Amino acid sequence: MMKNSPECRPIGVFDSGVGGLTVVRALMERLPFENILYFGDTARVPYGVKSVETINAYARQITEFLLRKEVKLLIIACNTMAAVARSTVESLSVVPVLDVIEAGAHRAVAETRTHSVGVIGTPTTINSNAYARAICRLAPETHIFSQACALFVPLVEEGWLDHPVTRLTAQEYLRPVLAEHIDTLVLGCTHYPLIKALLQDVVGPDIHLVDSAEAMADVTADLLHSRHLTNPERIPPEYRFYITDVPLRFQQIGERFLGRSLPGIERISL
Amino acid sequence: MMKNSPECRPIGVFDSGVGGLTVVRALMERLPFENILYFGDTARVPYGVKSVETINAYARQITEFLLRKEVKLLIIACNTMAAVARSTVESLSVVPVLDVIEAGAHRAVAETRTHSVGVIGTPTTINSNAYARAICRLAPETHIFSQACALFVPLVEEGWLDHPVTRLTAQEYLRPVLAEHIDTLVLGCTHYPLIKALLQDVVGPDIHLVDSAEAMADVTADLLHSRHLTNPERIPPEYRFYITDVPLRFQQIGERFLGRSLPGIERISL
Repeated sequence: MMKNSPECRPIGVFDSGVGGLTVVRALMERLPFENILYFGDTARVPYGVKSVETINAYARQITEFLLRKEVKLLIIACNTMAAVARSTVESLSVVPVLDVIEAGAHRAVAETRTHSVGVIGTPTTINSNAYARAICRLAPETHIFSQACALFVPLVEEGWLDHPVTRLTAQEYLRPVLAEHIDTLVLGCTHYPLIKALLQDVVGPDIHLVDSAEAMADVTADLLHSRHLTNPERIPPEYRFYITDVPLRFQQIGERFLGRSLPGIERISL
Repeated sequence: MMKNSPECRPIGVFDSGVGGLTVVRALMERLPFENILYFGDTARVPYGVKSVETINAYARQITEFLLRKEVKLLIIACNTMAAVARSTVESLSVVPVLDVIEAGAHRAVAETRTHSVGVIGTPTTINSNAYARAICRLAPETHIFSQACALFVPLVEEGWLDHPVTRLTAQEYLRPVLAEHIDTLVLGCTHYPLIKALLQDVVGPDIHLVDSAEAMADVTADLLHSRHLTNPERIPPEYRFYITDVPLRFQQIGERFLGRSLPGIERISL
């Protein structure tokens, strides 16, 4: 097997910041022999409040960077970019493109019994209506109830993962969604897996939470298998992390998302 | 009086986003005949989590932009830039430079009777120790107790100005500061004037809150007067707002900060 044969190349995962590391974590667990290259645009995070035009321009730069690094697959691990810039990424890419919204929508449709699904995310993701469109494409009979939760990202980054303020905030945001008798709730933001336990507690045991990072890892495994792109090497894989800035507490926050130490960080400019 | 004589030129106010509009609001009230040019770097907000190097590079670009617009005075209405990039701005500027930290520190020293002062701000502002240094330069006997309050900016932007979550968050952040028996608390972030009533309620009536936007307007009036730069024209002034992106809900959030309608917004690239 040639070192640079397509199967041995890394998976390229990108996000506006650290959130996509929850996807990397799920990939590491699900696909322990795949090389992974992560790109986090930490100098320009958060994308959630920027215009569609700006987000597309940034997505184009990141895609070109990862393609130069010869990835075998591109994973858009940022809900905001998946919502508004997927076609930009696809139009530039010579390799397959997957995104967290598609993955979460598939899982939600597979899980729901009542066809009533809730979706929570950042204001930009929710306003884009991308989850609702993706779910309706797969199962048009589904009723979807969405709620923007602007404060969850800063709460997670503050580390208040099991805190009365986070609980009260979740109760406030989820009250209207719970009133709709959903049986499945999509965590439509890569930060939310870190408060999954608290959210499960707030919604109660009868509602199934869809963790889009885990869903993403399953979809990736399926695609690699069906396209014969699974890495045949059985050696410890290489992980590389490119970021555009080294923000305050990056190491600490990044390791909380990745669930392990975060070596091999390289700061680059686009 | 020539239209382009120095006194008639606008005051240049800049911030990483919308927060500096609280300073513009205070200036409009205090100096109703001054032309004001506002620059908000909304495409790259927030600065609070970026590295010192990146913040300095951005401050340089903004300073050069405003100097090309022929402002008579530069006001750094962003605590993060004031904390880490003031000397960069000064080294480039041919006009006087004022900043919110200096203004807030002056007011705090003038107000405190017990020489015990609390300072709250974003993590970057607090970690920079800039308020503590500015206060100690003016009154070395002052005891200063600082607290980073990362969640206040997103809470203000969510519009939860008088909300149980904001109250609980404030109680949590302020508990250690209140234990120090301060008599003065500096609101070291331009977003905080919007939750001043709630904060006053949490700290109680015996603690004096220093609103750095109001302090900034007073310092500006003094400087214009002493340098003979006050605009002699008694006609309705011109207000211009340059931003680098038009984020979601910008108009709504901006008007909440400015306390009035927000016309004449122009989007530019640096």
